[in-house]
Amino acid sequence: MSTYPHNSLGLVKPQSIIIKKPLELSCGLVIAEHKLVFESYGMLNETATNAVLVCHALSGNHHAAGWYRGEKKPGWWDHYIGPGKPIDTAKFFVICPSNIGTCYGSTGPHDINPKTRKPWGPDFPSITIEDWVDSQNLLMEYLSIDCWAAVVGGSLGAMQAMRWSVRYPGKLRNSIIIASAMKLSAQNIAFNEMARRAIKSDPDFRLGNYADYDTKPIQGLALARMIGHVTYLSDQSMGKRFGRELRSNHILGDQLSPPEFQVESYLRYQGEKFAKYFDANSYILLTKILDYFDFSGNSKNNPVATFKSAKCKFLVVSFTSDWRFPIKRSREIVDALIAAGKNVSYAEIESDQGHDAFLLPNKRYEGIFRGYLALVANSIDLHRP
Amino acid sequence: MSTYPHNSLGLVKPQSIIIKKPLELSCGLVIAEHKLVFESYGMLNETATNAVLVCHALSGNHHAAGWYRGEKKPGWWDHYIGPGKPIDTAKFFVICPSNIGTCYGSTGPHDINPKTRKPWGPDFPSITIEDWVDSQNLLMEYLSIDCWAAVVGGSLGAMQAMRWSVRYPGKLRNSIIIASAMKLSAQNIAFNEMARRAIKSDPDFRLGNYADYDTKPIQGLALARMIGHVTYLSDQSMGKRFGRELRSNHILGDQLSPPEFQVESYLRYQGEKFAKYFDANSYILLTKILDYFDFSGNSKNNPVATFKSAKCKFLVVSFTSDWRFPIKRSREIVDALIAAGKNVSYAEIESDQGHDAFLLPNKRYEGIFRGYLALVANSIDLHRP
Repeated sequence: MSTYPHNSLGLVKPQSIIIKKPLELSCGLVIAEHKLVFESYGMLNETATNAVLVCHALSGNHHAAGWYRGEKKPGWWDHYIGPGKPIDTAKFFVICPSNIGTCYGSTGPHDINPKTRKPWGPDFPSITIEDWVDSQNLLMEYLSIDCWAAVVGGSLGAMQAMRWSVRYPGKLRNSIIIASAMKLSAQNIAFNEMARRAIKSDPDFRLGNYADYDTKPIQGLALARMIGHVTYLSDQSMGKRFGRELRSNHILGDQLSPPEFQVESYLRYQGEKFAKYFDANSYILLTKILDYFDFSGNSKNNPVATFKSAKCKFLVVSFTSDWRFPIKRSREIVDALIAAGKNVSYAEIESDQGHDAFLLPNKRYEGIFRGYLALVANSIDLHRP
Repeated sequence: MSTYPHNSLGLVKPQSIIIKKPLELSCGLVIAEHKLVFESYGMLNETATNAVLVCHALSGNHHAAGWYRGEKKPGWWDHYIGPGKPIDTAKFFVICPSNIGTCYGSTGPHDINPKTRKPWGPDFPSITIEDWVDSQNLLMEYLSIDCWAAVVGGSLGAMQAMRWSVRYPGKLRNSIIIASAMKLSAQNIAFNEMARRAIKSDPDFRLGNYADYDTKPIQGLALARMIGHVTYLSDQSMGKRFGRELRSNHILGDQLSPPEFQVESYLRYQGEKFAKYFDANSYILLTKILDYFDFSGNSKNNPVATFKSAKCKFLVVSFTSDWRFPIKRSREIVDALIAAGKNVSYAEIESDQGHDAFLLPNKRYEGIFRGYLALVANSIDLHRP
């Protein structure tokens, strides 16, 4: 008897493959082969027209939905992926890889640099969203899929969906861009830089060579995560959840056991939990990928020109209390798409959950997501050869 | 021949006094005497009715206006204090003390603890806004001033102006509350907690006893300041000022000399500059004072009841792009004052400068500030005995 919810995928298992084709990175370096860990849900149809690529965000990975034995929580987007859910696994074949550079098994800083026969560590090459899209394209070829029904992502994931639309225009029919932006603002970059400094200032970081010393910059990485975490939440949601409640003690209590607000202990707990399983070099690398993303940087900051080559349809979604990627950043995407003559649907979702809203239950978001993907599913038969 | 602007105070000098009356702190500890460093501008009139108390904010001090010999910049509020300026030193006698707990000469963590005959360091008592107001009240008695024409402050300074109105209601005629809130939100507290963690994580912090080791937690304090700094600026102002400009190098440049965005190098420079002159124990103490401030905490969170005892008039000012203390937090103050039947003027100023706007030139802000204080000046004669 299963203990998983009735509309759940139940137990899932990751797969691991070696892509034996060379991947030329934006920095010029060519990786002869690379490993990708991914999960898939649902069945690929005969014509291979029902595949959906799900792209993860900064701290995400291949475990997007379903359950691992013994785990208390399902994958990070389980609320939106599964039988009867918006990304309906009864209709779609869903693929979610961990991207290169992350720390969940795909090629990354923890792997052996073939030249030095030691872990790459801080010397892992600078990579970009384009490199990720190219790696995902090789995965697509490996799986013999010619065209995605949709490429979907939130935040950093949405940047991949956006880039897909113009890098391989013939290879996707829909791009779903949630809670994102065409490039980071100076404020976004500042928060990422502070997170990197927090890691690099930890004496256990040792210029990124912490593995050589059998240590980890836990304190620095925890603080980096706290800095990020606050920017994912809204002032309202933090106020509702924590207010100014003290976890213990009075405000003018003992100097030796100082009082702590609930919000402090929550962030500290989350930060320290994160620091135990995430890799510091990966975190630095990933925040740099975010900082360097500039959708129309190569076309003189003209996103209309950049979007011109896209052939797919678009869904863009933003959330009212998201201050990391505010709704005006999504409107910029929509305006550029309209000016480029593209087919775009756009929804602004009322939410007090901040940037995290894209991961959380929300009736209207769910309805729009479900409705759009139902149309995508209905159109699949039309594309049978 | 003076090299200072014609409407400037010119050269100014701080004064230092010992308050020999006991100060009972909120935590119960009694300080037998304490030192206060302050500056004064303008002349006290015969009836001592033209004195204005200026309260500084988190990183502020007694040097509010005028110039020190050889310095490139005047005091922190020089734009608003001086002859013919909104706080007009031709009319008012202006006093600005450095509060206790800071690191500019007034009694603080760097001073000798009379019990241990060693510097207080991290054992300096927890202090509160109320303690500051009480200390300022002793300064007022020392100066033989019975009633302030106005108590004025921005941010943490405004919290002092707010507390003055109800702690010594008979001793001020106007309270000017700029860019502030009746208490911090969970998000505000979270940013302060991250700043404190940044300091405490620095190995040179040594549990606050860094002076014993002849070192200073420069890196941690610099990061703490960066975290604070970002919350004082608006997304717009950072975007205008820095955009995504690189200081040097290309994005996919040399791994050894990584590229840096302008905003990164600016914040790093400001953080490191700050860390050289500010004291880490003071910074921790001051952020705690902010966190613990709760204007109506003692009256069951009923600010209307708390304001009931106030006798002065109020001016409240907020700025549209301030996300540290958004305009809705100032409206809460105004609503409570109106419900308590008080005389309050309120202005919301259009600005893209974020929280820092209260320090910066702004025509409408200046006009309102000037207009209000002109009325205060006109009313002074009425109060002659």
